[in-house]
Amino acid sequence: MGGVMPLVQLVIGLALVQFFFFLFAVGKARETYKVAAPATTGNEVFERYFRVQMNTLELLVVFIPAISIFSQYFGSYLGAGLGVVYLLGRIVYFTSYVKDPKSRSMGYGLSVLPIMILVVGAIVGAIRAAVLTL
Amino acid sequence: MGGVMPLVQLVIGLALVQFFFFLFAVGKARETYKVAAPATTGNEVFERYFRVQMNTLELLVVFIPAISIFSQYFGSYLGAGLGVVYLLGRIVYFTSYVKDPKSRSMGYGLSVLPIMILVVGAIVGAIRAAVLTL
Amino acid sequence: MGGVMPLVQLVIGLALVQFFFFLFAVGKARETYKVAAPATTGNEVFERYFRVQMNTLELLVVFIPAISIFSQYFGSYLGAGLGVVYLLGRIVYFTSYVKDPKSRSMGYGLSVLPIMILVVGAIVGAIRAAVLTL
Repeated sequence: MGGVMPLVQLVIGLALVQFFFFLFAVGKARETYKVAAPATTGNEVFERYFRVQMNTLELLVVFIPAISIFSQYFGSYLGAGLGVVYLLGRIVYFTSYVKDPKSRSMGYGLSVLPIMILVVGAIVGAIRAAVLTL
Repeated sequence: MGGVMPLVQLVIGLALVQFFFFLFAVGKARETYKVAAPATTGNEVFERYFRVQMNTLELLVVFIPAISIFSQYFGSYLGAGLGVVYLLGRIVYFTSYVKDPKSRSMGYGLSVLPIMILVVGAIVGAIRAAVLTL
Repeated sequence: MGGVMPLVQLVIGLALVQFFFFLFAVGKARETYKVAAPATTGNEVFERYFRVQMNTLELLVVFIPAISIFSQYFGSYLGAGLGVVYLLGRIVYFTSYVKDPKSRSMGYGLSVLPIMILVVGAIVGAIRAAVLTL
């Protein structure tokens, strides 16, 4: 029983490590393509790495609270499972975006879809709990 | 009693949905104003949508932990109420910024003020709890 | 005992206040260096303030969940202590980056290192808890 939330925490931890990896990829691309700070534009390939990082930042801000609330109501096996789909979707997004921005749709969908389910589930769970206890 | 935290979770869930809406508005503006990824500049109207998204991202990162801690100490009716003010402030911010960036102040204030109260309350609550139990 | 988590909440609250300070510094730099919204480029010094804010945003998204999970497993004296190192590192980062972007490494390292420890600790703690209770 106590092992349920740790699974969700583990997936959150892995999502943070993955994001750190994207941050370092940007730092490396900054050197490779000679884009000196504070600039974030000037080289198209660098900008791809930068956009992957920014897009992941946007999703991470939604993913972490959503998976936490969702798992409280629907169990963390389901929550952690959806989280793993998000993690895989981000890997696909990263590799396809860096190769060709036009091919980023599938990885994007694969990481956004589980987040949408998590958000909707979090809201449904919270409404149900609020109504039951009012 | 158990219905208290779900209200805060519901407001957090709605803030995530709202942010998703802003993300999709950027995606749509990208197509309408022909700003191909990875660029985020080049069309003034597109940049307005983009800045609304970025500014909301910045506030969301503060809003979610602040409302969570605040509500633990000051109850979630007050927490959720301040959260609703934030949500309304963001709607005003979005509509006014997209129409004219110079008119964005009111919506900005209306969404930043409740966050400031939440942050200060969270700190006051945490200090009080830390002192009481040391 | 109850005084333990409040310490971590206090550090989180201070990190949010610090981030708000960086946001306002950007707003002030926007006026000083005449960079009208929605633009985020056009003046090199303004861009420094802007990059400090963005970089802090990126780290904050990792810092908050990481310190929360870490402290649950390793106690919040250690968690809060690492959080204070992060806060100081960000002050060094801000002042050195604004003065000269090339001197930003030390402040960056000082704020990233404690986050890495928090993330690794969170993952180790979660794995251990998951294994123990399966």
